Amino acid sequence: MEEVLIFGHKSPDTDTICSAIVLENLLKKLGQNVKAARNGEPNKETKFALNYFNVELPELINGVEEGQEVILVDHNEFSQSADGIENAKIKMVVDHHRVHEFETADPLYYRAEPVGCTNTILLKMYKENGVEIDKTIAGLMLSAIISDTLLLKSPTKTAEDEKAVKELAKIAGIDYEAYGLEMLKAGTDLSDYSAEELINLDCKKCELKDKKSRIAQVNTADIPEMMTRKAEIEAAMQKVIDEEGLDLFVFAITDIINSNSQAIALGKETAIFERAFTTLEDNTAFLPGVVSRKKQILPVLQENA
Amino acid sequence: MEEVLIFGHKSPDTDTICSAIVLENLLKKLGQNVKAARNGEPNKETKFALNYFNVELPELINGVEEGQEVILVDHNEFSQSADGIENAKIKMVVDHHRVHEFETADPLYYRAEPVGCTNTILLKMYKENGVEIDKTIAGLMLSAIISDTLLLKSPTKTAEDEKAVKELAKIAGIDYEAYGLEMLKAGTDLSDYSAEELINLDCKKCELKDKKSRIAQVNTADIPEMMTRKAEIEAAMQKVIDEEGLDLFVFAITDIINSNSQAIALGKETAIFERAFTTLEDNTAFLPGVVSRKKQILPVLQENA
Repeated sequence: MEEVLIFGHKSPDTDTICSAIVLENLLKKLGQNVKAARNGEPNKETKFALNYFNVELPELINGVEEGQEVILVDHNEFSQSADGIENAKIKMVVDHHRVHEFETADPLYYRAEPVGCTNTILLKMYKENGVEIDKTIAGLMLSAIISDTLLLKSPTKTAEDEKAVKELAKIAGIDYEAYGLEMLKAGTDLSDYSAEELINLDCKKCELKDKKSRIAQVNTADIPEMMTRKAEIEAAMQKVIDEEGLDLFVFAITDIINSNSQAIALGKETAIFERAFTTLEDNTAFLPGVVSRKKQILPVLQENA
Repeated sequence: MEEVLIFGHKSPDTDTICSAIVLENLLKKLGQNVKAARNGEPNKETKFALNYFNVELPELINGVEEGQEVILVDHNEFSQSADGIENAKIKMVVDHHRVHEFETADPLYYRAEPVGCTNTILLKMYKENGVEIDKTIAGLMLSAIISDTLLLKSPTKTAEDEKAVKELAKIAGIDYEAYGLEMLKAGTDLSDYSAEELINLDCKKCELKDKKSRIAQVNTADIPEMMTRKAEIEAAMQKVIDEEGLDLFVFAITDIINSNSQAIALGKETAIFERAFTTLEDNTAFLPGVVSRKKQILPVLQENA
């Protein structure tokens, strides 16, 4: 039987990488021939989590062959997936995003729920299948939920995510608050990234009516330090705008300790940003209380496009 | 709180109608404000089942308003759904078909599995939520699975469907084989349908590469009797071909007792049908062992388009 590849989105984050490993573990225990993979290099937060629980990175793939059987985690949009996904055979999806630019030729397993993290859904799937969760897997699931919900402080967090974190912390036998802060802080060490890398660490394409845009986000514990690199970040953003013909590029520097963001917005449609939030001064604005791209940035931009 | 409408596809069949009722029952027990609805008139098989278990038909709706919260069962493709679905707010989908021409603006519950019937998935959802299934609901679920799997004889049937039928028959307290045959036969009384109605009872649009096509299907216990109406059926088919600019219209008359079909194929692309199956004589051909549009007709036509 052919091996089914399990992978998450490009520019992988902790939920995407951990989802692939966690679902591989579940399906192997259910007797399936599956293998976790990844579409890109892990960020420092993810490396910290894997290192902490002594788990190896899934194998990097460079697109998928026609007819390859695959399972998508933490995404469904083809534009965020492996190259060649249009001609792969999608057997299963486990996700917590909207369904968009996704289709299959055949019936499949599709499991999405509007919760804060894919791993909150995976926890349910372990329970439904009566499969025990070991300490390591619990630690990875916990890391993913802490990452996606910024230690339960993001508005994307649901009651189910919170319950899952407490349950998984018990299984993993760790103090999730201390561990979570340490993990999130590991992800905020951005000093050795180039400006190009910074704006690509977690960057999503999105459409604002007929306008092409990108919203990138980084987590930090120190906004002023990141803003010392404003000029080179803007230059890198402008390069992407020119190359891709973007109308708007928003880069959110999110302070995960105090739950605020500093945004840099460039492009000929910055008026959308200003209608959505506030006046830009020298291309930048402080957004108090804003931490979630999905809930607090994208929909507000869409409404004002 | 606004009432969320639950409905299945147009040209409703037994699974679509029963799924709406069965999911309404589950979600109401979980405290949600939901209401089952339907997009079209029920066929005789469905009427027989509802009558047998003394359950009322869900309310007929005529499209949905912008922003209406909805739950889709037994379908996801917008072209098969209520008019106006593009601007509704889709909260949940429970389905067993491929995902196609479907998208949402927000994250949602999406539960699809590649099984023979939506109600096989709904049975799992009752169990996962610890909600008891009463005799009536079990009877409706059983009817739907019998209908979609032609009493477990269709190749779309999975081991899970078979297990579900046996379990539900016990709860409903009925002999599923005797009941199922009676229900399927009730659906084969097509004598008082006009030819236009016959070709619309269960008719799906589908694309064969760039060719526009429709595949309609009726169940019968007597193919020769149905074929006495061949001339008027062909005239009705030709009218739809002209009106919609179809390239191929296939009408499958399926003998549910002996598990065969007689097909009538019209349109300028009947060569696709002939490559897929066999030579047409006077626009018709006998297809031994063919009972499933999804598994035995549509994919074979697609391969030969």
